[in-house]
Amino acid sequence: MTADRDQAADDGAFTYHGGALDVARRLAPAAPEPWIDLSTGINPHSYPLPDLAPEIWSRLPGVAALAELERAAAGRYDAPVGSVVAGPGSQAMIQALARIAPRGAVGVLGPTYGGFKAAFAAAGARVDEAKRVEDMSGLDVAIVVNPNNPDGRITPRADLLALNERIRSRGGVLVVDEAFADFDNESGSMAPVPPRGAVVLRSFGKSFGLAGLRLGFAIASAELVEPLRAALGTWPVSGPAIAIGTKALADRAWTEAMRDRLGKDAARLDALLNAAGFRIVGGTRLFRLAAKSDARGVFGRLLAAGILARPFAAAPDWLRFGIPGDESAWRRLAAALAGRV
Amino acid sequence: MTADRDQAADDGAFTYHGGALDVARRLAPAAPEPWIDLSTGINPHSYPLPDLAPEIWSRLPGVAALAELERAAAGRYDAPVGSVVAGPGSQAMIQALARIAPRGAVGVLGPTYGGFKAAFAAAGARVDEAKRVEDMSGLDVAIVVNPNNPDGRITPRADLLALNERIRSRGGVLVVDEAFADFDNESGSMAPVPPRGAVVLRSFGKSFGLAGLRLGFAIASAELVEPLRAALGTWPVSGPAIAIGTKALADRAWTEAMRDRLGKDAARLDALLNAAGFRIVGGTRLFRLAAKSDARGVFGRLLAAGILARPFAAAPDWLRFGIPGDESAWRRLAAALAGRV
Repeated sequence: MTADRDQAADDGAFTYHGGALDVARRLAPAAPEPWIDLSTGINPHSYPLPDLAPEIWSRLPGVAALAELERAAAGRYDAPVGSVVAGPGSQAMIQALARIAPRGAVGVLGPTYGGFKAAFAAAGARVDEAKRVEDMSGLDVAIVVNPNNPDGRITPRADLLALNERIRSRGGVLVVDEAFADFDNESGSMAPVPPRGAVVLRSFGKSFGLAGLRLGFAIASAELVEPLRAALGTWPVSGPAIAIGTKALADRAWTEAMRDRLGKDAARLDALLNAAGFRIVGGTRLFRLAAKSDARGVFGRLLAAGILARPFAAAPDWLRFGIPGDESAWRRLAAALAGRV
Repeated sequence: MTADRDQAADDGAFTYHGGALDVARRLAPAAPEPWIDLSTGINPHSYPLPDLAPEIWSRLPGVAALAELERAAAGRYDAPVGSVVAGPGSQAMIQALARIAPRGAVGVLGPTYGGFKAAFAAAGARVDEAKRVEDMSGLDVAIVVNPNNPDGRITPRADLLALNERIRSRGGVLVVDEAFADFDNESGSMAPVPPRGAVVLRSFGKSFGLAGLRLGFAIASAELVEPLRAALGTWPVSGPAIAIGTKALADRAWTEAMRDRLGKDAARLDALLNAAGFRIVGGTRLFRLAAKSDARGVFGRLLAAGILARPFAAAPDWLRFGIPGDESAWRRLAAALAGRV
């Protein structure tokens, strides 16, 4: 393991997201089970799994089925048909992007998710952190997570288009990671208009609560589509991911209802955190970033109560919280934050 | 789509394996349904799917679970623990290999599967075809499919070790693709002893009849393991693939019984093809390569009967046949080969 799709600008005991609960269990072996994992930005309300025909598992995924998935994604993201490339998770798309991106200066608007640094390092490039979009004009590869993880910061589309104009004139590429755009800032998405030299990333697993499926998309201008496909190779997506993704992406009613539901969840979480003395720094409908001088102490008390939040080594007063998945989780979080455990 | 995991040395209407049945349906729209797809080397007797817990789908695959899968694979392939790297299908492993392999002369022992050419082309390298292992000593990257697809040719392990000796002295890499070694030539596998500078590829989906799952393995010497992991990135394998793969790879009884069953199937298929005037060129327990001067005519008659075999543009007297999956398929194949359709 060399990267963390959900690592935010620093390393530490909880760097490796997928293994975070294992670490938490070792640190707090007496904590009550089941653990409540609020360390991710994955929707706890998973899309209901459809029945899968045996051929979905047994046969190689067909070209026509993959094309249908990509059409469903184009519909969902309002993206031009032919601009969408499916892959086995958005981290896999980042790995592929790192390989086809031009050599030169690579920068990411930070602090943000750390997975870009690892992917570009594997491809032999270094990623520097920029503090402002205006500082990125001289880059060969500029990366902006929008909305940003962990603080929810939104970069206006006009600023991104202006940045794209400046760097593409020298053959540069702009990467806009919209992993958290499905329920926030959709009106500011670049997917409907991927200009030449731009790649937009969308994550399926987070929004649909199916992170184990490994499915993500790049929406790219024409000259980047074929290199991306070639980097991913044949049969990039599993049969189950194609079948489930095609159905879920076309299910507008589910997405609309989920946006409402998660909006209420996020407001409820903010209220709970405010009541516990936290200030809300920002976030999206899938996670909230909260600050408190004693955040590390709270983190430890939550651990003892079997609840894993996300700390940040470089910002000890920050904690990020995912959305609790059921009333039992809400009650346990409220009790632990109130010190009633 | 740029490559075909099962393409053998040439292109043509059936180059894109995953879409081959679509092409066949267009060519023979009046053929009886269901189509019998014998154009692949995928085991038609799929491993029974276990029940999957909801967390397998909803959560990011954990580091510990991935490590357990790789331990199960090490056990199954008699490979050293720590030498096994899991990825989303063996084509994805080839794509990763093409990126981390040394630049220089790349050669594949042919004629064979065409997916290497496409993957190395995507990484900016050309793959030349070598006719004999002895001609590969001067290469920087030497690729041998063992047993070979489509003819089942076996390259003795001693020859591969000698080739590895010669090319690693100059920093070269030997790739041995054992995609069809699970039921054939296991005693000649390189997996138990991956020498420095060597990578062995194993395919899960073909042997277990679960090609839609996308799961494959590289077994590599220590200096190649970390670059492979870095090229694949975090969360390379889906939750379902980890859960199903871990169970299936540890199920020795199933594999032993399947080796027997497929041995009988292959002998039955040879007898059927011999009776139809074909000479058996070679093969494995998962496919048979057969020759007849009128092979193209037979291919067309099979198409009309709703049966898809695999033709080869460069060898018009060859047809490759996968194993029929049930008695109905056997009967239809026998009738079509005997001209009773």
